[in-house]
Amino acid sequence: MKAYLAGPDVFLPNAAQHAAEKIRICAIYGLTGLAPLEDQNQISTGSTTDVWRAIFRKDIEMMEDCDIIIANLTPFRGASADAGTLVELGWFLGRGKPIFGYSNSAASFTARSLAQIAAMPDGLPGLVVENFGLTDNLMVPGALEFGGGLPVMLPPDGKDRAFDALDVFEACVAGIVRQTRTAKFKSAF
Amino acid sequence: MKAYLAGPDVFLPNAAQHAAEKIRICAIYGLTGLAPLEDQNQISTGSTTDVWRAIFRKDIEMMEDCDIIIANLTPFRGASADAGTLVELGWFLGRGKPIFGYSNSAASFTARSLAQIAAMPDGLPGLVVENFGLTDNLMVPGALEFGGGLPVMLPPDGKDRAFDALDVFEACVAGIVRQTRTAKFKSAF
Repeated sequence: MKAYLAGPDVFLPNAAQHAAEKIRICAIYGLTGLAPLEDQNQISTGSTTDVWRAIFRKDIEMMEDCDIIIANLTPFRGASADAGTLVELGWFLGRGKPIFGYSNSAASFTARSLAQIAAMPDGLPGLVVENFGLTDNLMVPGALEFGGGLPVMLPPDGKDRAFDALDVFEACVAGIVRQTRTAKFKSAF
Repeated sequence: MKAYLAGPDVFLPNAAQHAAEKIRICAIYGLTGLAPLEDQNQISTGSTTDVWRAIFRKDIEMMEDCDIIIANLTPFRGASADAGTLVELGWFLGRGKPIFGYSNSAASFTARSLAQIAAMPDGLPGLVVENFGLTDNLMVPGALEFGGGLPVMLPPDGKDRAFDALDVFEACVAGIVRQTRTAKFKSAF
């Protein structure tokens, strides 16, 4: 089973090495991980107008080639997960391909939204803060629950992990393997 | 043509009235707007665990019923667009249904990312800042360009609009109507 390894991991200074480690962990559990690695010099210099389009096309091709997505939903530059990762999550939901994910943040979306507003006030007063005790906007855990049958994997001890920690990712991968072997999953996907 | 009106507009204190105004503008241009309105008391109190699942199912049903999406990509509590809106954008891309969108922010994604980092530092030093001169993570304008043929509609005078302003939305709707009448669009979608 090929797993698309979505996430802001692509922006890590050691992105290639980090992707290799994720692929190694996937292999331990019998999954083939594919990471949408990008040339970081191209990302940060924006060398030509065609570079970003080439990255977009390449990522879509890789997603077409994969059976499931494992999304790193750790918050990135705001209260929510990385924007590119969320578009990819939605793409898998639209295609009916199974969706799984994890976050290295143990805080609720409500708590992170309030912290974000304290640091950078909303553009307009009175905007509602979603308060369902979820880990992100309800469309995110909704996509996972309806698209793969599991909740977002969070740090089991309730403590935030480092941005690039991989123990919650590994727990997520182990859970995916168990889930995809169930009769309920096999009949749904 | 039915248009799914995605966006953080659902969190506005006057969300129902705002949605009605968007639907009125769509009607002027011959589009049927559908807005995923939610009961704001339910959003902010998280009354029961089933409420958010019901909202998720209802939104997906409304998306199934629509031909295109018009996404409000104005940044929301971070450098990028609203998380739920991005999942919905990806869903339309996965389904091969046309995608359109606008933003009331004239600033580049790079500038907004740097402002976000200044207000709330990244969890890890050295994370790359995307610098393609785009309005959000490349997957967002990519989804629009490949999924509808138009760029993200931005304030034409390069000046930020109020969070709930609707003139850029109206320009977006007008552009969609022109675009969907072209032979190129008709052959692609």
